[in-house]
Amino acid sequence: MKKVLAINSGSSSFKYKLFSLPDEKVIAEGMADRVGLDGSTFEIKLENGEKHVDEVAIPDQETAVKLLLDDLKKYDVVEDLDEIAGVGHRIVAGGEDFTDSAIIDKDNLQNIFDLKEYAPLHNPAEGEGIKAFMKLLPNVPEVGVFDTSFHQTLDPVQYLYPVPYEYYEKYKARKYGAHGTSVRYASARMAEMMHKDVKDLKMIVCHLGSGASITAVKDGKSFDTSMGFSPLAGIMMATRSGDVDPSLLQFVMEKENLNMDQMIDILNHKSGLLGVSGISPDMRDLKHNKDPRAQLARKMFINRIVRYIGEYIAELGGVDAIAFTAGIGEHDKRVRRGVMEAFEFMGLDPDFDANETNGEKFISKPDSKITVAIVPTDEELMIERDVVRLAKLD
Amino acid sequence: MKKVLAINSGSSSFKYKLFSLPDEKVIAEGMADRVGLDGSTFEIKLENGEKHVDEVAIPDQETAVKLLLDDLKKYDVVEDLDEIAGVGHRIVAGGEDFTDSAIIDKDNLQNIFDLKEYAPLHNPAEGEGIKAFMKLLPNVPEVGVFDTSFHQTLDPVQYLYPVPYEYYEKYKARKYGAHGTSVRYASARMAEMMHKDVKDLKMIVCHLGSGASITAVKDGKSFDTSMGFSPLAGIMMATRSGDVDPSLLQFVMEKENLNMDQMIDILNHKSGLLGVSGISPDMRDLKHNKDPRAQLARKMFINRIVRYIGEYIAELGGVDAIAFTAGIGEHDKRVRRGVMEAFEFMGLDPDFDANETNGEKFISKPDSKITVAIVPTDEELMIERDVVRLAKLD
Repeated sequence: MKKVLAINSGSSSFKYKLFSLPDEKVIAEGMADRVGLDGSTFEIKLENGEKHVDEVAIPDQETAVKLLLDDLKKYDVVEDLDEIAGVGHRIVAGGEDFTDSAIIDKDNLQNIFDLKEYAPLHNPAEGEGIKAFMKLLPNVPEVGVFDTSFHQTLDPVQYLYPVPYEYYEKYKARKYGAHGTSVRYASARMAEMMHKDVKDLKMIVCHLGSGASITAVKDGKSFDTSMGFSPLAGIMMATRSGDVDPSLLQFVMEKENLNMDQMIDILNHKSGLLGVSGISPDMRDLKHNKDPRAQLARKMFINRIVRYIGEYIAELGGVDAIAFTAGIGEHDKRVRRGVMEAFEFMGLDPDFDANETNGEKFISKPDSKITVAIVPTDEELMIERDVVRLAKLD
Repeated sequence: MKKVLAINSGSSSFKYKLFSLPDEKVIAEGMADRVGLDGSTFEIKLENGEKHVDEVAIPDQETAVKLLLDDLKKYDVVEDLDEIAGVGHRIVAGGEDFTDSAIIDKDNLQNIFDLKEYAPLHNPAEGEGIKAFMKLLPNVPEVGVFDTSFHQTLDPVQYLYPVPYEYYEKYKARKYGAHGTSVRYASARMAEMMHKDVKDLKMIVCHLGSGASITAVKDGKSFDTSMGFSPLAGIMMATRSGDVDPSLLQFVMEKENLNMDQMIDILNHKSGLLGVSGISPDMRDLKHNKDPRAQLARKMFINRIVRYIGEYIAELGGVDAIAFTAGIGEHDKRVRRGVMEAFEFMGLDPDFDANETNGEKFISKPDSKITVAIVPTDEELMIERDVVRLAKLD
């Protein structure tokens, strides 16, 4: 039975899921944590629920891949590594080169490394992961699945910044967006749930995790998205600021004697919910906290989502469906309620009872002018499907 | 007959209008240009259309004020300077200190100078202007009219940035907005035109000049506004970028070897319509230019307005009225048309014929669900009225 691996390498971790075909069942999953750092561990979780965690040195991606392949045999997940028919890799930055997922060979592997200035922590690690698989499973196709590809359908009106045009010509400085794989999944799944063709729908997908973005989807394509040149832009997030007046940065940098790299680091890691609340970057910690700044942070978070949805309704000229996905979108009923209430004036009729619990379902009433649903995301499933499609495994 | 002077000092210029009371007629106006620079000139335009321009050294604000007072007597605009019953001054930055226009005495004049870090080019020049009037017309009340005051009604949810909260506590780093006097005028006038109480209206004012901003007005108060800590933020402008992903700045600064001050200078002076088109910062120059980048710049400009209006419709929970004001808002029918068309899906019914020409009027059909009008702004009139109100001249 053929199997497909979906790999999600972070800067110092490496998550994986092994799918069996054609049933798309996850038959093993786990992660290599702290790759290249002290205290690294390798974990595998089997279909029967068994979990094995090894504390073992993982100096590089190749070691992580070896541990994975060894474990798959050791725990009888595969009899032979030949059963692995394809490997898909999530890649953060695809630039303008990758407008779709793609089979990765030695030539375009170099492109992934060359795009590192658009994702300095991620692309090199992800490239090394692919390289390790190419070496250890030389006859297996590797597929790159890019966070940015789905947003390559944006028009220049949406993707250009009002800065000197030469920055785009010389450096490709523009909006790329992120979370494309998740948004692609959620928009397609939402259309399925509605028994409609995604091409007939104006849709807004709220991917609300610790990184969070809002995307306008039209004709099944990304029309605009809140993340920008980098994943720092757009709505407020767990520790990221989202949009900020650049002059405010100049002002704070002078006051605090910071250089731009330090300022950007603060905007990425000490801002957002954490920065405003001073308590936690996690919406779950803030939910029942009576501290006024905890509640202020939650209100600001909801406000920024509402504003971007309003923006995209205007750009789309209306909206048929809104999908909530990712950690907060799937689990924070108060955030969903706050957002839905803001659009009651447009005929959105929330089903507050349905919204009380989580899981894939509609949370607007049947006659609501805007259909709203929780759509748990599944990026690994999309990666698996892209491997099947591009490596022609079906 | 009592008269009121309205003064608008820029960093190196000084415009004025003299109003007669109670008819609010402009009986003289003009400007001192290139104050403190070579090639300075002083200009006065009289009620009969006569215009006098002197090429004369104007080393400082005090000299400019002297020239003004001399000319008023010389051309018989006033018989005696005692007729001037009050002087109003536009001030760019009022911080959190000035929530309304205010009589300026020696104490709060110092506040205006102290707020210079929020408007380094403007507040010191404006403060010097007030000082000169205090010296030359010691018995006449001076009134400060702040661009930011109108926006002091924003809630923290709107005015705070998702950055470390201490930046607000330590440095008052927050959204202040701008164009407050113009928006206050346009929203009040729009309500008058509609024969409604401004307190019963949800309104969006598009102040579209070379600096441009969008403001949501609810209950007659500013609810949210697109300019931020500084006038750099928000929509695309003539030479200003508006909102940009901070990471893009970091990226460009490294590529072009720029420091933050240089980068901010480029965002203020070489971006916006000029940056994208590479041709001109002036919408009039771009209008009939067939260069694709000229048309792209115009499309982006309209898009950013549409997005902000959408944002504010969402925040307000609907909108009753949209007002266009300032240079582009009052004179560019294509911009107005583009914006109106974007909201036809909400029941906005444009009166395209009315929109063909300029001047104060409605440009939506009588049964439109959103009423749209051109409302030529008059900041000097608001300054005059604030002087009358605060100096109790009526």
